[in-house]
Amino acid sequence: MGTIAEYIDENEPRIQEELFTFLRMPSISSQSEHEEDCQQTARWLVDYFRKIGFSAREYPTEGHPVVLAESPRVEGAPTLLIYGHYDVQPVDPVALWESDPFEPQIREGAVYARGASDDKGPLWAHIQAAAFWMQSEQRPAMNVKFFLEGDEETGNEAASVFVYQNTELLRCDYLVLSDSPQFASGQPAITCGLRGMAYYEVKLTGPNRDLHSGMFGGAITNPCNALTRLLASLVDRDGKIQVPGFYDDVLRASTEEMAQLEMLPLEEEHFYAAAGVTGGTGEKDESVLSRIWLRPSFDIHGLSGGYQGEGSKTVLPAWASAKFSFRLVPRQSPGDITKSLRLFLAGQLPPGIQMELQSYAGTPGISVDISQPCMKAAARAVEFGFGRSPLFIREGGSIPIVSAFAEALTPHIMMIGFSQTTDNAHGPNEHLSMADFYRGMKTSARLWRELAALPLEPSTK
Amino acid sequence: MGTIAEYIDENEPRIQEELFTFLRMPSISSQSEHEEDCQQTARWLVDYFRKIGFSAREYPTEGHPVVLAESPRVEGAPTLLIYGHYDVQPVDPVALWESDPFEPQIREGAVYARGASDDKGPLWAHIQAAAFWMQSEQRPAMNVKFFLEGDEETGNEAASVFVYQNTELLRCDYLVLSDSPQFASGQPAITCGLRGMAYYEVKLTGPNRDLHSGMFGGAITNPCNALTRLLASLVDRDGKIQVPGFYDDVLRASTEEMAQLEMLPLEEEHFYAAAGVTGGTGEKDESVLSRIWLRPSFDIHGLSGGYQGEGSKTVLPAWASAKFSFRLVPRQSPGDITKSLRLFLAGQLPPGIQMELQSYAGTPGISVDISQPCMKAAARAVEFGFGRSPLFIREGGSIPIVSAFAEALTPHIMMIGFSQTTDNAHGPNEHLSMADFYRGMKTSARLWRELAALPLEPSTK
Repeated sequence: MGTIAEYIDENEPRIQEELFTFLRMPSISSQSEHEEDCQQTARWLVDYFRKIGFSAREYPTEGHPVVLAESPRVEGAPTLLIYGHYDVQPVDPVALWESDPFEPQIREGAVYARGASDDKGPLWAHIQAAAFWMQSEQRPAMNVKFFLEGDEETGNEAASVFVYQNTELLRCDYLVLSDSPQFASGQPAITCGLRGMAYYEVKLTGPNRDLHSGMFGGAITNPCNALTRLLASLVDRDGKIQVPGFYDDVLRASTEEMAQLEMLPLEEEHFYAAAGVTGGTGEKDESVLSRIWLRPSFDIHGLSGGYQGEGSKTVLPAWASAKFSFRLVPRQSPGDITKSLRLFLAGQLPPGIQMELQSYAGTPGISVDISQPCMKAAARAVEFGFGRSPLFIREGGSIPIVSAFAEALTPHIMMIGFSQTTDNAHGPNEHLSMADFYRGMKTSARLWRELAALPLEPSTK
Repeated sequence: MGTIAEYIDENEPRIQEELFTFLRMPSISSQSEHEEDCQQTARWLVDYFRKIGFSAREYPTEGHPVVLAESPRVEGAPTLLIYGHYDVQPVDPVALWESDPFEPQIREGAVYARGASDDKGPLWAHIQAAAFWMQSEQRPAMNVKFFLEGDEETGNEAASVFVYQNTELLRCDYLVLSDSPQFASGQPAITCGLRGMAYYEVKLTGPNRDLHSGMFGGAITNPCNALTRLLASLVDRDGKIQVPGFYDDVLRASTEEMAQLEMLPLEEEHFYAAAGVTGGTGEKDESVLSRIWLRPSFDIHGLSGGYQGEGSKTVLPAWASAKFSFRLVPRQSPGDITKSLRLFLAGQLPPGIQMELQSYAGTPGISVDISQPCMKAAARAVEFGFGRSPLFIREGGSIPIVSAFAEALTPHIMMIGFSQTTDNAHGPNEHLSMADFYRGMKTSARLWRELAALPLEPSTK
């Protein structure tokens, strides 16, 4: 058997060209005009797995299809499930991209494309680990399943529903995913906690048409005025959320966890500089890491209403809308929060305004026990792949399906980061360092050997 | 000489077809892609005036050209200047229009098109009064000038500058315009007061790119969050403006004026119903008419930021922006208000946010003395045209150039309404009743005879 490093040397042009093919597919799951693109991407993945010697097929869901692929069976060996998602975020504002989001380009050692960092690039590293094992030994050292969904970016729970309904098909001893970032460039990390999310769209409707603000301004309630007031009422100046009962289920982190957190090498100055600002806002008496990992937050994702074109227009608009979300911490219930939110907003509506509040699927936050043997095996694999021990960190983002995994499949969940927080996931000019990509590929290939060597634990599910 | 009624009977198809030609021109002054359309519209007007026997030419300004047309000279007769604007508002949201905004359609006795009500339709009524006089008597009973501009909807002061620089060219004894509405359907009105306006665009910039709200939310200031807070700080729950010193120059109306106001036949219920709502907001202890005519107001005209497409996107956006204005009452200075506003907003900016505040040209409010003989002449003309005496009202909107007229040309300003507040000026499905159009044409034709018969007052300018 050749080494993974040799394999990469020999196959680099092919691996990169295949990654480019994957990145060229505009699998934007939240936009209905890309429906067919998502389906084609799933079909292409199935074909690819079959080509390298895995069995593979698609399963329909209420959203986009999921892809399940399995390595040739190794009797008596444990099973690893690798999760990833083939769908990507929308690309607008397209004007801010330096190259076509769906025509990958290498610039300064990084591949630029929508999905490069989140999650096609990291997922491709795992798939190429499979290609390596299959070429070297015709099968991995353990049983490996890939479970790939196409609704991660929409909040559609189709894949989670599939998990709960197909626990036998997805049965596994370990679960790995790489949809979380490294701690910093040169400092890999394993994530042991995620924030949850409750996402909403609110639309305020006022007059039955756009009105002339001179003729009606001062007497007819303006939906844009009302929306800014309503949204501003949700947080105070420091970002503390004002919905009654919002913090009831928020537990303070343990002293031990907080101490660990404070030892992490984060210069707040650098954190702000990475975002191009000189300072930020947030709850008083909380560090930046606490604010983004351990505390809930409120963000408006989109504002829309009235005249948004060039120049001035003196309109009193008929409606205004906003998309916003709360990031949640473990124990907070998205359902309870939606109820409180609805009451809180409805209680403040001024005369002449109707509200529609649409709640997207919510996700609870989760945390993983870092004392498990598999987490130590994962740390060894990362050290092999990246040449450096990982930090155990939390992550401020949400991976809705991880809650389903923890509940329905296994508590042995390893979130190993290949990407960087500075990769512009979800923004323009998303990219992934090709060096990180190959380090991830090495980490994945080694992880399968490390986990195969662990004493078999009885599955807890 | 035939009567105006006979003239209308004989020429109705031509008058309407020419109005349609005028309405088909997409002379949107605030959008640079319609630059050429505005110029063509001005040229077309010049040609039309020449065709009916007026002398006419265009004059360049810093904005779009103005058109000046003059009737054949009548020695010893007074001069009337008729003002109108050939530019129109933008048309989005186009999807809400039932027919193409630039392909006029008659439905239930009204013409639907952008500009039908504001101001091409009413202006065409005056121009057709000129056509009538020229055909019947080869000249009007007095000297008549038309002064038509193409920047009324942009806040561009080019035409006002032209007025101040060309007082001899525009010299007149009386001034009439029909860019204000009737009081209600079947109840014509002459407007004796206008609110002014101060219009702004604010843009808040935060991070140097769109960020992932999971990774940064709670620590990096979100420009959409900051914008809603900033805009909400400008007014209280009742619409009372919070900028320091804002009300310093606002005079309470006289007891007499307030008493007259209260006698006007406005059912607040009907006012709200006309806008499709069951109630509104506004300053406590003020009637609806006081709120829209005598008191300042604050309206947000557009909100923009982050992801506005279908579905969800968990972005922490790089910027957010809004267009908004204050309506002002006579004595308030737009310049002073801009200074106070800038300080007030700058003082509230959170860390990590940069503000750009763009101030569009401001207009002071004005009021006209209703005891002048020309106002009584105007009332008689309206009674002839509409079959009913006009009410003297104020208007909540702003006509920037009227302040320039009052200051540079004449205090004898008659704002005679042909349109309705329910015509959807500035909104989708703008329209004008063809009956109101012909009543306006009759009023205009009669007004020239009424004014010619008044004893000549020495011009006060």
